Amino acid sequence: MEISDRVRAGDVRAMARLISLIENGFPEATSALKGLYPFTGQAFIVGITGPPGSGKSTLTDQLTQEFRRHGRTIGIVAVDPTSPFTGGAILADRIRMQRHSLDGGVFIRSMATRGHLGGLAKATNDVVNVLDAAGKEVIFIETVGVGQDEVEVVKTAHTSIVVTVPGLGDDIQAIKAGILEIADIFVVNKADREGADKTVAELKAMMALGPGRSDWSPPIFKTVAIEEEGIVELAQGILAHQAHLDQAGVRQERQRERSHALFLELLQERVTRRLLERAAANGILEQTIERIAHRDLDPYSAVDEFLEKAGF
Amino acid sequence: MEISDRVRAGDVRAMARLISLIENGFPEATSALKGLYPFTGQAFIVGITGPPGSGKSTLTDQLTQEFRRHGRTIGIVAVDPTSPFTGGAILADRIRMQRHSLDGGVFIRSMATRGHLGGLAKATNDVVNVLDAAGKEVIFIETVGVGQDEVEVVKTAHTSIVVTVPGLGDDIQAIKAGILEIADIFVVNKADREGADKTVAELKAMMALGPGRSDWSPPIFKTVAIEEEGIVELAQGILAHQAHLDQAGVRQERQRERSHALFLELLQERVTRRLLERAAANGILEQTIERIAHRDLDPYSAVDEFLEKAGF
Repeated sequence: MEISDRVRAGDVRAMARLISLIENGFPEATSALKGLYPFTGQAFIVGITGPPGSGKSTLTDQLTQEFRRHGRTIGIVAVDPTSPFTGGAILADRIRMQRHSLDGGVFIRSMATRGHLGGLAKATNDVVNVLDAAGKEVIFIETVGVGQDEVEVVKTAHTSIVVTVPGLGDDIQAIKAGILEIADIFVVNKADREGADKTVAELKAMMALGPGRSDWSPPIFKTVAIEEEGIVELAQGILAHQAHLDQAGVRQERQRERSHALFLELLQERVTRRLLERAAANGILEQTIERIAHRDLDPYSAVDEFLEKAGF
Repeated sequence: MEISDRVRAGDVRAMARLISLIENGFPEATSALKGLYPFTGQAFIVGITGPPGSGKSTLTDQLTQEFRRHGRTIGIVAVDPTSPFTGGAILADRIRMQRHSLDGGVFIRSMATRGHLGGLAKATNDVVNVLDAAGKEVIFIETVGVGQDEVEVVKTAHTSIVVTVPGLGDDIQAIKAGILEIADIFVVNKADREGADKTVAELKAMMALGPGRSDWSPPIFKTVAIEEEGIVELAQGILAHQAHLDQAGVRQERQRERSHALFLELLQERVTRRLLERAAANGILEQTIERIAHRDLDPYSAVDEFLEKAGF
């Protein structure tokens, strides 16, 4: 049986193997992904982002449990270097997460956040497609909301959740920088801490100042994820956003954006790979770098020269 | 007078204008950068990275003051959304930084962390080259050490400083994920807080576990940047690393790595831009995205098809 057929049947080992092939950039991965693509587009994709220490993993964990109670199957993709899934976590967190590893309805995969030739966003998108084709109904993507790549990742979700905590001070400002526009739902986690209401008020003020969206006003949920407080409400908020997307026909719009992003990432990866292969094969790359390092040639002209030689 | 000549003469307005041209991707920027490139390679480039709230900006500010005392001219590139330079800061931080804005020997530039077609690393490298050609002797690049792009940025510095603070817990683990290998110097800032010695011990333990480097053992400095404590020692540590690089001939090696990185970034940007222009011009892009969104075509085959049509 082909690996893509086994993935479609929900075979956990086949999924894990295909994801490894993707991460290592093996060509077999692409042919399997081609075969799986027609079966994607079914899952509901939820992006969860926020600064380190905001409790994204605990939230994801609790949301997973909540959706499992309603029988939904779950995929989790962690691209957060501070996530317990990815390895950066204290022991208690890790143990908490392990309860799902015994549940066949939950598939968890962490992604290395560095070293992807085609970029993290491309690899993450590929993995989401694997989980989607394997029949996972809800897919959570957890990222740290600071870097550019991480924001790109979350942008392609159907519902983007931005998590913050009381008393971060500057970090609220940091969120403002680029994440405000992508948030469909805000969560103030650790809301038993002092200043939770102030944080909610600040978020509201920021939204009032922002460009505004005619179709959807992002709700703000207060949670204490570690105590399971506010999780049911948040899960309902996610479902409400899903219903809104379907109703307004916006889900198709997001689908198109997702397709657009995936296509561009693939294009960039493929082209760069081909160019570098050609360059390495004939020794041009080595020579060019040497000339740039010695200031005999500027890198801007070098690229022009290189593309001309490559007949591009 | 050409903009590149004015930049070389240290004209602040010309520098600011050229950097804006770079950020907006104008072709004039490239021709100016070509003209300036032979005059780069003189500056000493220091990358400063660490989690949000670790006090990177205050450290940069204090190091700037310290190097100014010794008559060195300084360039600062802030690609950190939580940096006061970039805009995400409380008022006190902003005012503190402003003292340098009156000093002609210091040029500060913040970078938008999103929306760069060729990636943040490419734009930052271009800006560093501008400051370098303008005669700035020491250039600080400040980034948040979480995202992939941000790490790429710091990687091209001559000296990479990784900042942490006591009591971050998980975040030490996060640092481990990818930053450990790039650190030439560690700083435990806010070292008047409880647990500073424990953090130092943890860093030492991490280094002992790591791959190890035969040529340089990264020192760990304790600082209280806001009180100007430990700054003189840290500045000396930077100079010591600089001396080491020159002595061991490693500086040339870093120069080569920098050239390599810059070339690849430029190549990727240029190729993608050209392909997209061609695709947009003949309407292929629009059609292709539509077919992918409708699952009539998988994006992997779409890229193959597209490249074939583009004659690549």
